[in-house]
Amino acid sequence: MRVLVALGGNAMTGPDGSARPEDQIAAAEVAMASVADLVAEGADVVLTHGNGPQVGNLLVKNEISANVVPPVPLDWCGAQTQGTLGFILLNALERALVSRGVQRQAAAVVTRTLVDRHDSAFDEPTKPIGRYLSRADAEVLMQHGQTFEERGAKGWRRLVASPQPLEILDAGVVATLADCGYLVVANGGGGIPVVRGDDGTLHGVEAVIDKDLGAALLARCVAADRLLIATDVDAAILRYGKPDAEPIAEVTVDTMRKYAEEGHFARGSMGPKVEAICRFVEASGKPGVITSLTNIVPGVRGETGTIVVPRS
Amino acid sequence: MRVLVALGGNAMTGPDGSARPEDQIAAAEVAMASVADLVAEGADVVLTHGNGPQVGNLLVKNEISANVVPPVPLDWCGAQTQGTLGFILLNALERALVSRGVQRQAAAVVTRTLVDRHDSAFDEPTKPIGRYLSRADAEVLMQHGQTFEERGAKGWRRLVASPQPLEILDAGVVATLADCGYLVVANGGGGIPVVRGDDGTLHGVEAVIDKDLGAALLARCVAADRLLIATDVDAAILRYGKPDAEPIAEVTVDTMRKYAEEGHFARGSMGPKVEAICRFVEASGKPGVITSLTNIVPGVRGETGTIVVPRS
Repeated sequence: MRVLVALGGNAMTGPDGSARPEDQIAAAEVAMASVADLVAEGADVVLTHGNGPQVGNLLVKNEISANVVPPVPLDWCGAQTQGTLGFILLNALERALVSRGVQRQAAAVVTRTLVDRHDSAFDEPTKPIGRYLSRADAEVLMQHGQTFEERGAKGWRRLVASPQPLEILDAGVVATLADCGYLVVANGGGGIPVVRGDDGTLHGVEAVIDKDLGAALLARCVAADRLLIATDVDAAILRYGKPDAEPIAEVTVDTMRKYAEEGHFARGSMGPKVEAICRFVEASGKPGVITSLTNIVPGVRGETGTIVVPRS
Repeated sequence: MRVLVALGGNAMTGPDGSARPEDQIAAAEVAMASVADLVAEGADVVLTHGNGPQVGNLLVKNEISANVVPPVPLDWCGAQTQGTLGFILLNALERALVSRGVQRQAAAVVTRTLVDRHDSAFDEPTKPIGRYLSRADAEVLMQHGQTFEERGAKGWRRLVASPQPLEILDAGVVATLADCGYLVVANGGGGIPVVRGDDGTLHGVEAVIDKDLGAALLARCVAADRLLIATDVDAAILRYGKPDAEPIAEVTVDTMRKYAEEGHFARGSMGPKVEAICRFVEASGKPGVITSLTNIVPGVRGETGTIVVPRS
């Protein structure tokens, strides 16, 4: 069975959200223990990951050093995190496999995702990234074309476009390696966003791609039998935060779409995960799972978490 | 024919050595035009690259932002450049191939290189990296365990260990992809340096690996028929800088070793390239080439550059 496992960028930070290298390495060890358990059960795993906290740090470095070292655009920050997170996930996964006596090789691949340069997301950036700034600092950057939003007492925060992923351009590389028996880390941060110019050539673009929507697309490209989105809760919740809140267990994709339309899932957190799972299930006819990192193995077995199945 | 092409980190900077993103992209276009010409002739190409100027920038960002964002170690800087340079080389190479009507796919792989944690290079760091600092700034960092050297009027510069590459840990990934028809970008910066701990597990280590020595090792792992080191001169030179200076054309590896022992090649520039080529030729029995970026195609044909051949 081939499983696409999507980890949040927060799965590679410390308990307090800190993203020092040692925190990222320690968190990767924990995450890869669960993934190695799944591999030990015989699964082919393709692994993708978020990169929000990591890109946040890189943006701050860009800002602070801008007078001395040329800042790099947002797509480059994503590429940088594919390098570092690919590196530490490879090390941690191989370590976890060795300690389980599992003989499998892992690989990490630089992965680009095509978006439409006319995607309406570019007209109205909505995704908050980076640290909070003062009004004065934000105004300087707004004069350089960046979009900022006032977020109450904390200050101003940059908003960037989050366009729809259209094509995982390096999916063929991932599929080739998976078919050859490799466990593949790929499409970190949803993939490095690129657009196609009038002449057909590809160029990086300043945007962030939702890593779960990217994972859904990659899962179809590599013919995954399951898409599992690992998060910090055991399941998606109906009436979240209310007295009659209730976890969702097995559910058809039609019912899950209905729940989404009814507004059960928060826009910035569970919403995109549910959307990603629904897209995968509808397109592939295979189940999708939302559960916690520690429940990956029972989640793939369909024993825990929210299991979204095709319409019956 | 499979060719391992090694590009200097300077092949991805502006003419003045500047490493703004736009400079790196423009330089990558130029370099990939030459590589695409080679591919158009039917060669399988595995591509590796230096990262000195790029890592230099990342180190400066680390220093300047250290009070706000956690600095990342040198191995992570290398991983970051594998992400960004892999990204821009993929884009540029595909563009150059399309414009030549060549249908080949490219891939970029995160690549780790094993070094010996007891390598004597760790006792006496010799490789200068990063920017020049004042004595006062250098002294602060020396108290934190870094090694610095006074370099005359320009100031103080950090020295890091440059241990011998022992094994390209992800060479199997590169070979698999090359065998499946991909043009592969790999082992940037000589590979991300890792050491094996007492328990057999891998850990990143603060070091830089000579990218040409890494290239020589990778070339053998992927069974390359040629190792071509692309640099800014057309050939290695005997009696460099003297009135009777003379470019070296075809030469046996034994004679090239003799020239090296006689001190013809500068330690920090041509020396490691010659050493890398000799190691490849001795181990593989195949020719190695040192020539300029624009001479890649005739260089592989043996028509120009310094062609080092096995002992007859």
